[in-house]
Amino acid sequence: MRNQMAQKCYNTNMKASIITIGDEILLGQILDTNSCYLARELARVGAETIEMRSVADTHAAILHAVEETFLSSDVVLVTGGLGPTKDDITKQTLADYFHTTLERNAQAEEWLQLLLAAQPERLKNPYNESQVFLPRCCVPLRNRKGTASGMWFEKDGKILVSLPGVPFETETIFPQEVLPRLKAKFTSLNVRYKMLTVYQVPESDIAQRLEKFEKSLPNGISLAYLPSPGFVRLRLTAKTNPDDLPILFEQLKKEISDFSFLENTSEKNEENIALRLRAAGKKIACAESCSGGNIAHLITSVAGSSAYFLGGVVAYANEVKTAVLGVRPEDLKQYGAVSQTVACQMAQGVRRLTGADYAVSTTGIAGPDGGTAEKPVGTIYIGVSGPNGTTAKKYWFAHTRERNIGRASVQALVDLLAEIEKK
Amino acid sequence: MRNQMAQKCYNTNMKASIITIGDEILLGQILDTNSCYLARELARVGAETIEMRSVADTHAAILHAVEETFLSSDVVLVTGGLGPTKDDITKQTLADYFHTTLERNAQAEEWLQLLLAAQPERLKNPYNESQVFLPRCCVPLRNRKGTASGMWFEKDGKILVSLPGVPFETETIFPQEVLPRLKAKFTSLNVRYKMLTVYQVPESDIAQRLEKFEKSLPNGISLAYLPSPGFVRLRLTAKTNPDDLPILFEQLKKEISDFSFLENTSEKNEENIALRLRAAGKKIACAESCSGGNIAHLITSVAGSSAYFLGGVVAYANEVKTAVLGVRPEDLKQYGAVSQTVACQMAQGVRRLTGADYAVSTTGIAGPDGGTAEKPVGTIYIGVSGPNGTTAKKYWFAHTRERNIGRASVQALVDLLAEIEKK
Repeated sequence: MRNQMAQKCYNTNMKASIITIGDEILLGQILDTNSCYLARELARVGAETIEMRSVADTHAAILHAVEETFLSSDVVLVTGGLGPTKDDITKQTLADYFHTTLERNAQAEEWLQLLLAAQPERLKNPYNESQVFLPRCCVPLRNRKGTASGMWFEKDGKILVSLPGVPFETETIFPQEVLPRLKAKFTSLNVRYKMLTVYQVPESDIAQRLEKFEKSLPNGISLAYLPSPGFVRLRLTAKTNPDDLPILFEQLKKEISDFSFLENTSEKNEENIALRLRAAGKKIACAESCSGGNIAHLITSVAGSSAYFLGGVVAYANEVKTAVLGVRPEDLKQYGAVSQTVACQMAQGVRRLTGADYAVSTTGIAGPDGGTAEKPVGTIYIGVSGPNGTTAKKYWFAHTRERNIGRASVQALVDLLAEIEKK
Repeated sequence: MRNQMAQKCYNTNMKASIITIGDEILLGQILDTNSCYLARELARVGAETIEMRSVADTHAAILHAVEETFLSSDVVLVTGGLGPTKDDITKQTLADYFHTTLERNAQAEEWLQLLLAAQPERLKNPYNESQVFLPRCCVPLRNRKGTASGMWFEKDGKILVSLPGVPFETETIFPQEVLPRLKAKFTSLNVRYKMLTVYQVPESDIAQRLEKFEKSLPNGISLAYLPSPGFVRLRLTAKTNPDDLPILFEQLKKEISDFSFLENTSEKNEENIALRLRAAGKKIACAESCSGGNIAHLITSVAGSSAYFLGGVVAYANEVKTAVLGVRPEDLKQYGAVSQTVACQMAQGVRRLTGADYAVSTTGIAGPDGGTAEKPVGTIYIGVSGPNGTTAKKYWFAHTRERNIGRASVQALVDLLAEIEKK
C-alpha cells in the first residue's frame, strides 16, 4: 500500500507538449528534428502529443511557453538551451518556475567527471563547470553523450523534462532515462502493437480487403494505415487486451495472404532489406543514374550494411554507363539512356562487376530540365536483376527534382525487396 | 496621397509567428520542414520569427494557436490543413476567426481549372470541388503546384497567411505571392546583404581577425557568423544605408585576403561547387567508401549537375576497391582500407575511370562498429585528385554513424572545392 502511494500511477491517456528552445531554430538555420523524434517515440507507446512549440532562448519566451503548455498537458518535454555557453537561461528559468535555485549537483558532477575522463579532447570547454549546477528540486538524468545532464521535475502531479538540444544526446537520454520513468508513472503507456508492411498494393485496395476485419476488432484494439509511396504499413495496436493481439495479427495476415508483405517491419525499407539479406545471406549492389547515389546512401545508412552491400556505380554520364557498366552503345543510341533496355543492362552490369546476388538500377529524368513530350520530367525506369532474371519497370513521379530522386530511391528499394521476397 | 493611404506601410521590425497544422506532425510521422523554410526566408529579409507551433487538425487547436500568436506577432504564417480531404477545418476556423463565411471564389476556381487542365491525372480527386470555397474576406494566393489556394487576411493592421502543408507548394507560393506582399507592407523588409564563405579556418580565428572591422561598422550594418563544420559563412547585412554595403564588403574581403573564401555563396557547398565548375568548365567524379554514396547524392541534388558530374563508384567491399578502382591489393593489405594510401588510390582510380578533371574519395569507419584503438570510429580519410596531384587528409568525427557520414560528405565537398580554388 505504501509502495503504491509512493509510486503514483496515472491510468489516463498521457497528453504531452514538446518545447524546443533555440534562436538557431527560429532563424531557420537548423531544422528541429527533436520534436519529431520525441512525438514519434511517444506515439509508439500510446501517448498523445497535443502541441509542439519552438521559442527563443530568453527567460520570458521559455517561461511563457512552459506556463501555457503545463496547463493543457500531463507532461512537457523541453529540449535545448542547455549547452555550456548558453548562460544557463533555461536552467534559471526552470528554477524560477519551480520556485527554487541552482545548486551544485553531486550526481551530475560525478557523471561529468566520468565523461571527461573518457573523452577529454572532444569535451574540453572552459564553461563545463557550469554544467553541474542544476535546479535544487530536479532529479538529474544521466547523459552518456554530452556534458549537460537532463532534468526531471514534478509539480501538481504533472511532469516536466528538460533535455539537451543536440539530437543524438536527446535520442540517447530519452529511451534510457525518460521513457522508463514515464511508463512507471502512466500505466496507459504500456501499449502493445504489431506491424507489417504491404508492398505494391494501393491503400484503398488494402482497406477494402480489411473492411470486415477492421469492423470485427474488439474495443481497445485498432488498425492503423501508414501509407507511403509504394508501400503501406499496417499497425495493429492493443491499448487494452494485449493477449488478443497475437491471434488477431495472425488473422490479419491470413486476410491479406495473397499480397506481398513483410512482418515486424521498420518504416525504413533499407532496414527491412537489411533484415531480409542478413537472414538470406545474400549480397546486393546498385547502379544509379537519376537517383545519383541516393540508393547507396540509404542502404549504407544502416549500421552493418557492409555485410551485404558490396557497392555501386553512379553512372551519370553515358560514357560511365558504357565503360564501367557495359551498357551497349548501340542500345543507348537506339532506345536512349532513359529506357527499359538500359535500366536492365545497368542492373546486369553492376551485378557482374561486383558479383552481387541482386542488383537494382535507376535511369530517368529527375528534372527540372531534360524532359520531352515522350519522356516528361519524372519518367524513371527501375531495373532489378537477380537469380530469377532481369526486369525493369517504368514509373512517372511528376514532382520536383528532390522528390523525384527520393521517390525513385524508395521505389527502387521496394522493387528490390519484392524481388528478394519472390519465392 | 491616396495611394499611400491605400498601401499602408509599416517601418517597424516585422515579428512573425509560424503555425503548422497536422496530426501527422504531432504523431512524429512527418518532420515539419515548412517552419524552418519560412523562418529562414524571413530571416533573410530581416524579419524576426518569435515562435513556431505545431498543432492538431481541429477547430479548437487551430483557433487557440491563431488567437495567441496574433497577439504577439505582426504576421502569422499558417501552413497545412488545406488538402482536399481535410474537411475544410482550417478554412472554416479562419472564417470563424475573421467573422465571415466560406463562399465559392471565382479566382480560385479559375486557377484550379487551369491546373487540372495541365495535369488531369495527377490531380484527379473527387474532393477538388471543395478547394474553391474560401473565406469571404481573404485575398486568394495562386498555387501553381497544387489545388489548394493560399489565403491572405488582414485585421487590425496585422496579417495572417494560410498556405498548404505540402513543402513544395509552400516553397512555390511563398516567394511568388507572399514575400512581395509582405515587402510592400513592411518597408523594414528591404534588407540588403552580401555573403561569403571562408573554408578551413576556425570561426574563432576569423572572429579575431575581424574584431576591429566589426567594431568599425556603422549603425545599421552588421556582420553575422554562420559556422558549419569545415567552413564559416559571413553575412554582412545593411538594415539601413544600403549604399555603404559594397564598399564595406570589399573592405571585409581585404581583411581576410589570405584565407580561402568564395563570394556570393550558398549554404550548400554542392551549389558552390556547381557555380565554380560551370565557370571553370571542369568535370568531377567521386569514389566513396564510408560516405556510401552520399557525396554523389549531394552533388546530384543540384539541378543541371550532369553538366559537370560524370559519376562515381561506391566501393564498399574491398574487392570493388581493387577490381573497379584499381586500388593495389598489397597496399590494402599493408595499410588497411582506412588509410591515406588507399584514399589517394581511390581518388586517382575514379579519375582515371571516368576521365574527370578532379575527383574526391572517402574511406573510413562510420560506426557504430568496426573501430579499433588505432583507428577509432569516426576516423576518415578524404582524398582529392586533380591536375596538381593527389593528396589525402585524415579526419576524426567522433559521432553517430549518420553524423559521421554527413560530416565526411560535407568535408569532402569542402576539400574538393579548396582543391579547385587552388591557384
